[in-house]
Amino acid sequence: MLRTHTCGQLRKTDIGTEVTLCGWVDSKRDHGGAVFIDLRDRYGLTQVVMGPPEADAKLIDEAGRIPAESVILIRGKVADRLEGKTNDKLPTGAIEVRCEHVEILNACANPPFTPGQSDMPGEDLRLKYRFLDLRRKEMQNALIQRSRIIKVMRDYFAEHDFIDVETPILGRSTPEGARDYLVPSRVHAGKFYALPQSPQLYKQILMVAGFDRYVQVAKCFRDEDLRADRQPEFTQLDLEMSFVDADDIMALIDGLVARTAKEVLGKEVKTPLPRMTYDEAMRRYGHDAPDLRFDMEIVDVTSVAKKTDFRVFRATADAGNYVRGMNVKGAATKYSRRQIDEMTEYVKEFGAKGLAWFRVEDDGTLWSPISKNLDEAHLAEIKELMQGEPGDLLMFLADTWEVTCKGLYALRKRLGAELKLYGPDQLNCSWITEFPMFERDEESGNWTAMHHPFTAPLASDLEKLESDPKACRAQAYDLVINGSEAGGGTIRIHDSKTQSKVFELLGIDEATAEDRFGFLLNALRFGAPPHGGIALGVDRWVMLLAGLENIREVIAFPKTQKATDMMTEAPGEVDSGQLTELHLRTVGVKTQ
Amino acid sequence: MLRTHTCGQLRKTDIGTEVTLCGWVDSKRDHGGAVFIDLRDRYGLTQVVMGPPEADAKLIDEAGRIPAESVILIRGKVADRLEGKTNDKLPTGAIEVRCEHVEILNACANPPFTPGQSDMPGEDLRLKYRFLDLRRKEMQNALIQRSRIIKVMRDYFAEHDFIDVETPILGRSTPEGARDYLVPSRVHAGKFYALPQSPQLYKQILMVAGFDRYVQVAKCFRDEDLRADRQPEFTQLDLEMSFVDADDIMALIDGLVARTAKEVLGKEVKTPLPRMTYDEAMRRYGHDAPDLRFDMEIVDVTSVAKKTDFRVFRATADAGNYVRGMNVKGAATKYSRRQIDEMTEYVKEFGAKGLAWFRVEDDGTLWSPISKNLDEAHLAEIKELMQGEPGDLLMFLADTWEVTCKGLYALRKRLGAELKLYGPDQLNCSWITEFPMFERDEESGNWTAMHHPFTAPLASDLEKLESDPKACRAQAYDLVINGSEAGGGTIRIHDSKTQSKVFELLGIDEATAEDRFGFLLNALRFGAPPHGGIALGVDRWVMLLAGLENIREVIAFPKTQKATDMMTEAPGEVDSGQLTELHLRTVGVKTQ
Repeated sequence: MLRTHTCGQLRKTDIGTEVTLCGWVDSKRDHGGAVFIDLRDRYGLTQVVMGPPEADAKLIDEAGRIPAESVILIRGKVADRLEGKTNDKLPTGAIEVRCEHVEILNACANPPFTPGQSDMPGEDLRLKYRFLDLRRKEMQNALIQRSRIIKVMRDYFAEHDFIDVETPILGRSTPEGARDYLVPSRVHAGKFYALPQSPQLYKQILMVAGFDRYVQVAKCFRDEDLRADRQPEFTQLDLEMSFVDADDIMALIDGLVARTAKEVLGKEVKTPLPRMTYDEAMRRYGHDAPDLRFDMEIVDVTSVAKKTDFRVFRATADAGNYVRGMNVKGAATKYSRRQIDEMTEYVKEFGAKGLAWFRVEDDGTLWSPISKNLDEAHLAEIKELMQGEPGDLLMFLADTWEVTCKGLYALRKRLGAELKLYGPDQLNCSWITEFPMFERDEESGNWTAMHHPFTAPLASDLEKLESDPKACRAQAYDLVINGSEAGGGTIRIHDSKTQSKVFELLGIDEATAEDRFGFLLNALRFGAPPHGGIALGVDRWVMLLAGLENIREVIAFPKTQKATDMMTEAPGEVDSGQLTELHLRTVGVKTQ
Repeated sequence: MLRTHTCGQLRKTDIGTEVTLCGWVDSKRDHGGAVFIDLRDRYGLTQVVMGPPEADAKLIDEAGRIPAESVILIRGKVADRLEGKTNDKLPTGAIEVRCEHVEILNACANPPFTPGQSDMPGEDLRLKYRFLDLRRKEMQNALIQRSRIIKVMRDYFAEHDFIDVETPILGRSTPEGARDYLVPSRVHAGKFYALPQSPQLYKQILMVAGFDRYVQVAKCFRDEDLRADRQPEFTQLDLEMSFVDADDIMALIDGLVARTAKEVLGKEVKTPLPRMTYDEAMRRYGHDAPDLRFDMEIVDVTSVAKKTDFRVFRATADAGNYVRGMNVKGAATKYSRRQIDEMTEYVKEFGAKGLAWFRVEDDGTLWSPISKNLDEAHLAEIKELMQGEPGDLLMFLADTWEVTCKGLYALRKRLGAELKLYGPDQLNCSWITEFPMFERDEESGNWTAMHHPFTAPLASDLEKLESDPKACRAQAYDLVINGSEAGGGTIRIHDSKTQSKVFELLGIDEATAEDRFGFLLNALRFGAPPHGGIALGVDRWVMLLAGLENIREVIAFPKTQKATDMMTEAPGEVDSGQLTELHLRTVGVKTQ
């Protein structure tokens, strides 16, 4: 190594040692005929002093002209800092290195920004100079954290007898629903590989092959638009186990969550993690990934609405729809009429026709622009159902089940953030279970699989598969962290008959099933064990644990919406002649 | 878990325990009114007995009809085996489970082959039923071995402060020379991603970004034909370090090799691993990846050839070419004239015009069809140079340096295998260093980079970069295991001036360099540390350590030359209408 120590290593016990350090010039100060350089590497900062008697005038002069962010090598002796000049915040803050020799290993041109500056430029410039942006402490920490989290995962599963198996990147289309990236093959002219949306089929085949426990940190791909929390290539912790039920998988992941929280964040997470059925989550929070860092549950007051003379409530209830609301504790005076009007506009984005609200007054009565339309007895009933206390703000939507779910979920999410109902360090991990097997596609009216078509129904719902598909629940479980889906899995169907029945229900005819999933269907006929698994979104997991909101902050070279010539952002231009030749030939089209 | 124990777990100490086992029916025997099933899972085999008094006639009858390779669940009590019926070869061989209950979890259709059969069918059928093929002990062992090797690697680098960073799969073209797979992007219409041939540029940028130590088990891609030891997608252990020289990287990998050999194979490997320069390897073995499990070095006898009257030798030497040979110890009587004639034909495949050979007779003289053309004194000189002893066979090529290298390398490889000059368990790992920076492209006569264009020259050869490119050696090192290149790396150029000079020499003009490597060139201007790294071929590494010769035996779902409808083998047909629409639109070509 060119260096004897890193820039984060030297302590008082090293005083007197001759050392060689390498690093980046983080900052530089001229002070009393000497130059002070904070030398930086991944491990820390060390103060280097170029001054007499160790350094001669020439060295001091040269040091003064080294551009910031240059890479230098220095030799010198570790020394005590002057009385009062120590820096307790820095692990190396008790010492400095008195420099005798300096070499510029690579001078830095005038950089568009420096990693230490407080006012960072916009993301476009930061991505263009990603090598500078990645020097920021925040980015280094996020990627080091990511590396650690993945290591903890791998260690955990190795301890639990899992085998890490690499599944192909170039394969056939997977049945995940999103659009595949297609890759023309030169060797097999006229054919295309697809990049996997998940290793689903492969891992099921590994179970049929008797691998018993498979794990992989797998790259997956979807040819879809970018969002703040979505990249076209993403990383999943993917696993599958044989001879298990849903409880086994959840218990395994409970252990992983606790281990990760402890080893990476130093936090204790109590296990087993709380579990809630899908139905309960929709009833209490309006969503299958509720943020459980704070209370404020949805309460159903339809039974009261049915009795009132208030037209909107009454008509909704009579039509078989719902009046549901939330008690925003202590918020009666926090929101003005105007702000509530704005919130009414907000819930309209989710299909609501309006927002009814009541303040609980000091005397315990409910006041609202609409309160005159309701009997006092009914108001009291509402207050009781909502557990209203003076100072509370009660908000209601009167609409279909779906709209009340969507609107109240959105409102709750917004209020939770606005009212700071949770702390920045709070971590809530929970399971949502027993999802419906199927949902109706709104456009076509057809049944679609809520997870994927390989999901097994609950044993107790097996006969509903044909008689009442809507009521049929799946052996499915989602892990929710702080109100975001952090992963999900299912127990799979392990016999070809049930699998065929599900395909039929989904309108996938035999020929199509054979074409798309023939390899799996065949495998299920030759000794398939009961099996199930889960996939965790690693990017999102890291983002949630690090308390970040932009997924590009946990990916070294992310993609952005803007197509520029940057290697990190967008695919490149290929010489169009060569490209069309190569690609059109593979698809069997003659070029002009 | 459905089971209480695995099929590899039960011992004498478990006798009397009620257990539930799940697994595959490996084999079945009817014997004295009872059915004996060897139940198999990844962990082992357990003998299950369906017989009285525990099992009734119905259970025994049902058990007798379970097809082989079906998945069953059994419950019963662990019991001692009868005197003389124990199986010492099986860890569970002292016990059996006396079955009280059996459930068929998945019946197996009539399989085209079973994993236990001794005469396996051809690879095509095995790949078509990969889920059956993967049940074979050999395949399971190879993939478990692979998983362990990769885990050892990851642990080792984590201990050495490396950060595991994921680099993009969808990116721009990398400069590795082979053909890229191209992926049309829907979001950025008209543009294509390339799949990486290596994360070379990304990892160099991570060094410029100050990550100091990067490691990744990376998927890489080359759109090339398949071979027994090559797949279009392959796995590399890829790493990069800052502030290092070649010795640091080699010492690091020495530690990895020793650790892996010990933890995975239980073998001691002495470190530091032997090192040999490229020049020495070509001189002594004719190749840059010599098999050092056995001796039989190439010896140069040109100095004697020059003095003889034997026309072929003399003319070769006079023309400035070489007469080089090998002493095949004790092989004088092992090869007949006819066999040597056949070997002569063999070396002609490598450009040689013939093969000269001598037997060392019992009296110490050399005998050969050509010995009459040589003086006794010269024959004695040759014998001495070759250290010939009675019974030895001396073989020579007289040709250009290149042809003697190629021919003798091939001959040595063949003789080593034929004469069993190494044992099946022998492991030899060595470094080849100081490769030439450049080689001439035979067709165009242009210089090309022997490793890649980012490789730094030896400091002592820096001035030869312009004056004598052919003599300029690189800071490059290859790891050779048992005569196969198992990985290679270089110290990189870390200043843009040297980088530009190398590009110039390689005939890459400024605009092209900027277009292809602009992002890296730019990074080298903003504080780039000295850095270097290495990439190890994981597939090959596992293959070599497992003593296998077909890379498809260490990959769960390999690709084969034949395009069939199997997901594991070939890319699928995509609906041609949809495909051309989608793909032609992205390349900006109007479809008819």
